[in-house]
Amino acid sequence: MRQIFHKMHGLGNDFVVFDARDAAIAITPQRARAIADRHFGVGCDQLILIEPSDVAAARMRIWNADGGEVESCGNATRCAAILLGDGTTLETMGGILDLSVTDGGASVDMGAPRFDWDAVPLAYAMDTRALPLAWDGVETITPPIALSVGNPHVILFVPDTDALDIEALGRPIEHDPIFPERVNVNFATIESRTRIRLRVWERGSGATLACGTGACATAVAAIRSGRAESGVTVALPGGELVIDWQPGGTIRMTGPATHVFSGELDLAAFPA
Amino acid sequence: MRQIFHKMHGLGNDFVVFDARDAAIAITPQRARAIADRHFGVGCDQLILIEPSDVAAARMRIWNADGGEVESCGNATRCAAILLGDGTTLETMGGILDLSVTDGGASVDMGAPRFDWDAVPLAYAMDTRALPLAWDGVETITPPIALSVGNPHVILFVPDTDALDIEALGRPIEHDPIFPERVNVNFATIESRTRIRLRVWERGSGATLACGTGACATAVAAIRSGRAESGVTVALPGGELVIDWQPGGTIRMTGPATHVFSGELDLAAFPA
Repeated sequence: MRQIFHKMHGLGNDFVVFDARDAAIAITPQRARAIADRHFGVGCDQLILIEPSDVAAARMRIWNADGGEVESCGNATRCAAILLGDGTTLETMGGILDLSVTDGGASVDMGAPRFDWDAVPLAYAMDTRALPLAWDGVETITPPIALSVGNPHVILFVPDTDALDIEALGRPIEHDPIFPERVNVNFATIESRTRIRLRVWERGSGATLACGTGACATAVAAIRSGRAESGVTVALPGGELVIDWQPGGTIRMTGPATHVFSGELDLAAFPA
Repeated sequence: MRQIFHKMHGLGNDFVVFDARDAAIAITPQRARAIADRHFGVGCDQLILIEPSDVAAARMRIWNADGGEVESCGNATRCAAILLGDGTTLETMGGILDLSVTDGGASVDMGAPRFDWDAVPLAYAMDTRALPLAWDGVETITPPIALSVGNPHVILFVPDTDALDIEALGRPIEHDPIFPERVNVNFATIESRTRIRLRVWERGSGATLACGTGACATAVAAIRSGRAESGVTVALPGGELVIDWQPGGTIRMTGPATHVFSGELDLAAFPA
């Protein structure tokens, strides 16, 4: 069965996107892994499926390259925005998002962050603004902060994120039993009230060029604790995002999204 | 300018292939690098350009992911064979090759190997059957062997190729000044007269899943020194090739070639 797809990226976080609004496409963990393979398949960080929705213009589902389905991906949401067009809504496992197309990219309302320990989730009740935890090899300038922006994040404010070996540090934190659904790990350095440098260890994907939800979670943690202000620029290895958030409100993420090419493959060559 | 391309692989060695037989396509090192980028471009080990030829059905040019143009690639040649069809001829920088399509792949006459020191090339005259050289960290069961199969190779027969850290060992050998055009480094273990295990450090690409010319060069070195016979299977990390060669003759390489998908991109987004 011939199937059209789109290859897109946001800040180098790259996606194979299938538009299944008109005809269903069966994606299984095995098929997602095979399509995501960079030598034998198409190659991507995440596979995106756009489906019909009862509550929004479309619904987005996301599989990591390891075959696991995940709730949210900010970079994928911007890519969906330029495919679906300005002013549409998108249903995700993390909530319903409002999409706007901008020059060279998109602006996405990512919904409200959640700060309750069981919303992150953590394994048991604790104050998510200052986790009484530490991990070997990471010196932080504040206690770790946890929150959900549709998916679970821990934010570690460090003196210099570029000095850390996040390949070595990320995995043990991702798999710490305090995070029953594992966690995305944000290593952030505050340069000023309007600029944060960030490197992210993504749950199921490892160190990536840019994690949109990580930028949102980190900006919220910095703004909520008085270290930055709404409209903060988050500089990731793959490029920059601007994050707007006021306490009590929803998060707006603005940044680039690029359509690299369209392709056509035989789905039968990637068994479900 | 919209441009069709094909994504193909031979044993996981993957290619973006442009067919420029009807209309020229300008490929520069910068454009090849951008298209080969796995996050911001299409992603491949090598970019292949099929052009008109005055002496064969078509001409093939090859750029590595680092933007450097190279002479030969056996896996790319099998992929070209299934695009161009059975019984055609292909002009390469390494010579004119005869192509046959087989079930699931292709069989390619890779031309005759060359054993003269200045054909490899080496920096100065020595016996290519037994180089008076050794490299730190590599114990070989015979002296190193050098030969050309259209591109330069050195073959190191080792007790167990899987036990070696070829990521660490490959680069210094590739860049040894004895190889003025650098070299592809083959770490080979002879299991029987009909089976060789091989891992290759490819010039300009590093450790790869499968190097077709490396399999040819290694089989020729083994057959010529009486350690294997024509029809030997070479098992690479990405899969198996069968190599036929008799002293004085040309090399025939048989193995799989797969068309993964076709795509269409905007060449203007990848500046030349």
